[in-house]
Amino acid sequence: MNLPEEIEVAAKQSYPVYLGAALEELGDYLQSLPDKIQHILVISHKKVSDLYLERLVKGLEDYRVDLLTVPEGEEEKSLERLSRLTTAALDCGADRKTLVIALGGGVIGDLAGFFASAFMRGIRFLQVPTTLLAQVDSSIGGKVAVNHPAGKNILGAFYPPLAVWTDFSTLNSLPWNEVENGLAESIKHALIDDEDLFAFFETQADSIRQRDPAIWREMVTRSTSIKIRIVSQDEREQGIRRLLNLGHTFGHALETEMNYRGVTHGQGVSIGIVAASYLANAKGSLTLTEVERIKQLLQRYDLPTSIQKQDPQTLLRRMQTDKKNQGGRKILVLPQGIGQAVVSEDCTDEEILAAWHKIIVENN
Amino acid sequence: MNLPEEIEVAAKQSYPVYLGAALEELGDYLQSLPDKIQHILVISHKKVSDLYLERLVKGLEDYRVDLLTVPEGEEEKSLERLSRLTTAALDCGADRKTLVIALGGGVIGDLAGFFASAFMRGIRFLQVPTTLLAQVDSSIGGKVAVNHPAGKNILGAFYPPLAVWTDFSTLNSLPWNEVENGLAESIKHALIDDEDLFAFFETQADSIRQRDPAIWREMVTRSTSIKIRIVSQDEREQGIRRLLNLGHTFGHALETEMNYRGVTHGQGVSIGIVAASYLANAKGSLTLTEVERIKQLLQRYDLPTSIQKQDPQTLLRRMQTDKKNQGGRKILVLPQGIGQAVVSEDCTDEEILAAWHKIIVENN
Ligand SMILES: NC(=O)c1ccc[n+]([C@@H]2O[C@H](COP(=O)([O-])OP(=O)(O)OC[C@H]3O[C@@H](n4cnc5c(N)ncnc54)[C@H](O)[C@@H]3O)[C@@H](O)[C@H]2O)c1
Ligand SMILES: NC(=O)c1ccc[n+]([C@@H]2O[C@H](COP(=O)([O-])OP(=O)(O)OC[C@H]3O[C@@H](n4cnc5c(N)ncnc54)[C@H](O)[C@@H]3O)[C@@H](O)[C@H]2O)c1
Repeated sequence: MNLPEEIEVAAKQSYPVYLGAALEELGDYLQSLPDKIQHILVISHKKVSDLYLERLVKGLEDYRVDLLTVPEGEEEKSLERLSRLTTAALDCGADRKTLVIALGGGVIGDLAGFFASAFMRGIRFLQVPTTLLAQVDSSIGGKVAVNHPAGKNILGAFYPPLAVWTDFSTLNSLPWNEVENGLAESIKHALIDDEDLFAFFETQADSIRQRDPAIWREMVTRSTSIKIRIVSQDEREQGIRRLLNLGHTFGHALETEMNYRGVTHGQGVSIGIVAASYLANAKGSLTLTEVERIKQLLQRYDLPTSIQKQDPQTLLRRMQTDKKNQGGRKILVLPQGIGQAVVSEDCTDEEILAAWHKIIVENN
Repeated sequence: MNLPEEIEVAAKQSYPVYLGAALEELGDYLQSLPDKIQHILVISHKKVSDLYLERLVKGLEDYRVDLLTVPEGEEEKSLERLSRLTTAALDCGADRKTLVIALGGGVIGDLAGFFASAFMRGIRFLQVPTTLLAQVDSSIGGKVAVNHPAGKNILGAFYPPLAVWTDFSTLNSLPWNEVENGLAESIKHALIDDEDLFAFFETQADSIRQRDPAIWREMVTRSTSIKIRIVSQDEREQGIRRLLNLGHTFGHALETEMNYRGVTHGQGVSIGIVAASYLANAKGSLTLTEVERIKQLLQRYDLPTSIQKQDPQTLLRRMQTDKKNQGGRKILVLPQGIGQAVVSEDCTDEEILAAWHKIIVENN
């Protein structure tokens, strides 16, 4: 087998991430595992399995493979879907030795991962991420979850996969609006940890937009490596891992206020990064020139840097219920120049309001 | 504080079990923890909290305490109840720093434990077991779960508690039929691991039936210690921990066949132990005299050793779907003399049928 790049994620149970792997070669990898697998349960969307299951099962001829498809959409990350997966899994004879493969984006990864963590108190689980967001972000770090009417990702687990099997070629079929969700996270990674990668995004914008394979390979590899480096230092999000929330506290308030309509996750993060940048500027850790540089980069990728017709006070209230807050205090991540960031617990409501004002465009 | 006996459970995250602790002194223990607690969520049955919450909160005056009560019954160990607990927990301001206390029997322990394992991907959890079964069995070993229409305990986790806080005095109010459920497990512990304890159950039957406090303290302590010893060697149930299933494969088939009516869990286990003993006798690892000794001890505690009007073939089929089976083979635990047991993977269907026949009484 043509070996892909392998990076180890340090965790309570560490696991390898194979970057540039081929779907067809997953079987060879499974053969090499000490504890043999007999039954495989692939969980996917119909669209994704139509595109890629055939390639994947080419390598899995030695195993009994079942496919369970889940309807599209964030709302399928639910306890109800978990319950149906349980019934379906038992119907096709899943047991403690079954391996769950998540073939899809972050929704499939989070749902299948939480299912695998809970089914018979935990069975083996492998990530095959097929969106840019899943490759550079959600497949790495062991977080899995479902949503609940009372909050996003409110029920879940830290459940490291057996491995992450990343085939870059699956990104070819990804619609551009989905690419943008991943780009927002990739640019965020660069901003908090890697000024060189930030510059790469600036200089390679045309090639990235044209999906140049060599440039994409480099972009995904470097961006994934940042996430691996960070979660390897802090699996449980008690320290440095919190930096990954840059842009998310603002973005999440916006997404919930707009009821997840009219703004994608990537757009929310993009606007959130800009708001956090203005706040960082007010706190003295970022120059206005740097704020402009960040905005220009996001705009280069058609990511929004402002929003219309929103009420800053309402958005501020939305931030109050963020599950990352502790004891009522708002915890925010602020860029510190390009390529570094800090967690701040001392932003006042006035300062946050001022940041919201900066990114809200008054309609005439 | 008057220190209870402390036994450490070895596990990926090891934890202490305090035997003979006082409800009122839990607060002192919490004060001694390095990572401070502010908010406590007690999950309990109304009946149990009416009896014991007042004593418990005496020691918790330094904390914000909320109580969530769950209706009685095994059917409340469900995803629906998990969902409601989530809403209720958020309503009373639970966050990542909240400590969940399970105050009750095995139903509360399993449900509250699974809730704590999943809420915000895992918050702290403490067991305060108040049934004999919970004290000697379910609070030890880190298994938590909910049921699903497709199977008992099918969704869950290995989620070690912060600690187990066992106050023997709570057992005073336990109805005798509930005591029996715990006794069946305690006798099982003796049978698989401790011939002396088995003899103790024989000689002390009258004192135990009269709930002599000193004798109970000894019985609970010794029986709990066996479970601790076993799970400390094998947290994930891959080896020796499987011995704890003695009587359960037979008993579980009976319970499901009877739809959990007409036979309690303890009665099912008791009959199951006898069936397994006959099977062990057929396989040559137990004498008929020993089978009789086991039956007599169970009868001393009014635990049943036979059942009427059941079809062995049907019960055999029920055993086919046991989640402990692997690759279609039935895995059974057989006593090997008194005080030892072995896992057997080579019992034929004929041998199992013969064991069922031994414990089924033909009606006239
Ligand atoms: N666990 C984590 O650490 C973590 C981190 C970030 C985000 N997330 C979660 O990830 C989810 C979002 O993930 P997402 O952005 O991948 O969305 P998604 O999984 O919904 O995928 C987006 C769309 O792309 C389609 N798709 C997937 N692969 C494709 C391919 N190769 N070609 C064509 N279409 C394809 C999907 O069917 C879907 O319609 C959210 O639920 C979020 O909470 C989790
Ligand atoms: N996690 C494990 O390792 C494990 C092991 C064995 C059993 N279990 C689970 O445990 C459950 C059974 O537990 P259980 O037998 O404790 O049943 P239970 O929790 O339903 O309690 C039995 C009854 O006793 C009442 N009660 C509890 N404490 C009392 C007290 N001090 N005084 C008076 N009444 C009291 C309860 O309200 C309930 O009505 C099952 O769901 C089983 O699956 C789990």
